[in-house]
Amino acid sequence: MTSFDYDLFVIGGGSGGVRSGRLAAGMGKKVAIAEEYRYGGTCVIRGCVPKKLYVYASQFAEHFEDAAGFGWTVGTHSFDWSKLVAAKEREITRLEGLYRKGLENAGAEILQTRAELVGPNSIKLLGSGKTVTAERILIATGGHPTPHAALPGHELCISSNEAFDLPVLPKSILIAGGGYIAVEFANIFHGLGVETTLIYRGKEILSRFDADMRRGLHAAMEQKGIRILCGDLIQSVTAAEDGTRVVETLHHDHITVDQVMLALGRVPNTTGLGLEMAGVNTNERGAIVVDAFSRTSAPGIYALGDVTDRIQLTPVAIHEAMCFIETEYKQNPLSPDHDLIATAVFSQPEIGTVGMSEEQASHAFAEIEVYRAEFRPIKATLSGRSEKTIMKLIVNAADRKVVGAHILGHEAGEMAQLIGITLKAGCTKDDFDRTMAVHPTAAEELVTMYSPSYRVKDGVRQ
Amino acid sequence: MTSFDYDLFVIGGGSGGVRSGRLAAGMGKKVAIAEEYRYGGTCVIRGCVPKKLYVYASQFAEHFEDAAGFGWTVGTHSFDWSKLVAAKEREITRLEGLYRKGLENAGAEILQTRAELVGPNSIKLLGSGKTVTAERILIATGGHPTPHAALPGHELCISSNEAFDLPVLPKSILIAGGGYIAVEFANIFHGLGVETTLIYRGKEILSRFDADMRRGLHAAMEQKGIRILCGDLIQSVTAAEDGTRVVETLHHDHITVDQVMLALGRVPNTTGLGLEMAGVNTNERGAIVVDAFSRTSAPGIYALGDVTDRIQLTPVAIHEAMCFIETEYKQNPLSPDHDLIATAVFSQPEIGTVGMSEEQASHAFAEIEVYRAEFRPIKATLSGRSEKTIMKLIVNAADRKVVGAHILGHEAGEMAQLIGITLKAGCTKDDFDRTMAVHPTAAEELVTMYSPSYRVKDGVRQ
Repeated sequence: MTSFDYDLFVIGGGSGGVRSGRLAAGMGKKVAIAEEYRYGGTCVIRGCVPKKLYVYASQFAEHFEDAAGFGWTVGTHSFDWSKLVAAKEREITRLEGLYRKGLENAGAEILQTRAELVGPNSIKLLGSGKTVTAERILIATGGHPTPHAALPGHELCISSNEAFDLPVLPKSILIAGGGYIAVEFANIFHGLGVETTLIYRGKEILSRFDADMRRGLHAAMEQKGIRILCGDLIQSVTAAEDGTRVVETLHHDHITVDQVMLALGRVPNTTGLGLEMAGVNTNERGAIVVDAFSRTSAPGIYALGDVTDRIQLTPVAIHEAMCFIETEYKQNPLSPDHDLIATAVFSQPEIGTVGMSEEQASHAFAEIEVYRAEFRPIKATLSGRSEKTIMKLIVNAADRKVVGAHILGHEAGEMAQLIGITLKAGCTKDDFDRTMAVHPTAAEELVTMYSPSYRVKDGVRQ
Repeated sequence: MTSFDYDLFVIGGGSGGVRSGRLAAGMGKKVAIAEEYRYGGTCVIRGCVPKKLYVYASQFAEHFEDAAGFGWTVGTHSFDWSKLVAAKEREITRLEGLYRKGLENAGAEILQTRAELVGPNSIKLLGSGKTVTAERILIATGGHPTPHAALPGHELCISSNEAFDLPVLPKSILIAGGGYIAVEFANIFHGLGVETTLIYRGKEILSRFDADMRRGLHAAMEQKGIRILCGDLIQSVTAAEDGTRVVETLHHDHITVDQVMLALGRVPNTTGLGLEMAGVNTNERGAIVVDAFSRTSAPGIYALGDVTDRIQLTPVAIHEAMCFIETEYKQNPLSPDHDLIATAVFSQPEIGTVGMSEEQASHAFAEIEVYRAEFRPIKATLSGRSEKTIMKLIVNAADRKVVGAHILGHEAGEMAQLIGITLKAGCTKDDFDRTMAVHPTAAEELVTMYSPSYRVKDGVRQ
């Protein structure tokens, strides 16, 4: 029997890697985990967590405005970007410490180094130059924003990585992309007083989301003062003498801004990992190919989270980690369940969504019922803010199952989380109808839409 | 065949009466509806709606404080009570108009008068002195705060009715009661800068709620600076020369405040309605006794909403109204379903709840599992606010069904609405476990509590 230095060696200290390492170590396995940057991964260091904090920060300007309608007089207010960055930094450092502590307490060895595969069961630690062996190796190295190297001037642009820590808050920013990261940052920067433009080559932001959400958010963002250029594309970025960026687009000659942010997708962190040497296959996008149990093509090597490019979400990586532990260490083969995942876009207003869009459902089923409500939130009646909440339920007419739920409005993310349980459980529209309203809430609309707004039969709206 | 002036005469223009009148008139029935005060009822005029608006108003002080942790500097701010009252007044007047318009458009005759029964099928309109007849009479007269006439000095106190429209915001207030109305107003007044004391004769506020919610909210309110006197009771209220109220309680000699508000329960509006003349029975609390189809003891006379003292909630009255219409006018006998009603307390933090408390469930089932999470909301990490969100799921161990869900924290009402669907549908804890988290939200805690915090077996905590 071969003896290894470790039972499990984890490469990558993000959500998936840390959860795997902690659980395995907690079971008494000999575990090491290596991270070259900061523990916590994208989610904690430059993703979900700082993003949500910045979203909160960017909402205060609206609170100050809204207050007047409720009898308040608010004095002049100002915003200090560096204070926010510092506060964020303290918080993510605290969380990073908690991640490390969790690993430590479970008995995992924490390595601060880049680690690369040098063969089956063998990992080289670049910090010390040492090579170690492990019975199982788990790759959870995540991903990074695509630098879009083909774009002339791409090196003058920032990505979401840099956006959190800009030394100075720009006066103006152009954000390229139509996905949730582009949209969230556009709302954050606008809320903090930055003149914000979003440019996206597609026809409408947030492709694959329900069309009502896409159009609704687009309209809400424009109404707030965010400029949105759809069907347009950056051709080049140059630096002016004063440090500003001059952007040439397909339809606009010169857009001059302080910063250009590219949010054009994320690519798996697989370069230079030694995957070929270990026999680990990747796909055309550079993602590690895994089977239903997160096994790579190389025996004893596993991969999960963003590096596998299945679904790039923190809870999915954590779920994959828990399945990996069950399968490999608890004789309980569990394959990650990627079906019906509720998600949120922390735009302002938020989007919360689970299941099929109307369009998807109209292709999947012979007949669907669409229940749709659009209303002014109660708070807006006094604040005077002209905003609309949109809620939509998609029901398969054949069996009355709710197959899609889409919400644009305050706390849509919280709502999507809980409505996600009902879809996962296969609840029907009748279950919604039988539920008493909680008044006054926004969510009560979701249980009081008794008649369909319209039907779609064989793909045709009736 | 007898001929009547109306097919349906509705007494009371609140949520239940208006919905009944509008639906019946919309079906072509000859309908009249009489209201002596303002259309919209308690909910619109002096309940849910103005309450929620005042809750929003009272939250701005916290927003201003929270902003500092996110990099904002906020100038001095001030609050003008009369502006809030006026803004509220405009909004509820608008809503009142919508209620009237809905009735009008449906073809109902809208009467602005008190109406009293003078016999079977006969109603006297006090405005004109006229007596009219109707095939069916629906009593939906609601309720009012108990004046607690036995209390010496009760006439010096206000109720929730007056609280919305006080000419001047008091500097200090003593609120008597431990129910949701008392608790909500305590939080509102405190948020608006009023020195607030809550006095309740019970051991803990919010009896019948889950103990964690009761203790958690109590602690949160005290931490904010609300004084809570449990196990104490007002003995008398007198007016001092300067207009302040001097309150003597069981345990305190003299508490001097600007206003004393009594929130000691609500009583049905049945006095002087002529119920005896029409043969309509009431119970010992003065509520109209109805059967499962909202039929009173008098043929052709029905009652629903707060006047029947079943469950005093707007959506319940509306639901009872819809059942009444189905039963009486659509040959579809439908009995109101009062089981598993989710509700919210719009305190700060909010409570959202559905199903059984831990205590109730531990009596109802041989073994229950309790899943409990207590955590600091992500926003509080930067605002520095020391507040805790508490979430709790109660599961019947025998069949894994979730039989209770309780949330203390921001947007708990919205969450209770949607988690209410899962309880109504009979979802199990496994349905929760199979649902992917939405990160970062608060609600994700509800689907990531994989192991019970503890069990209660035969009433004993394990």
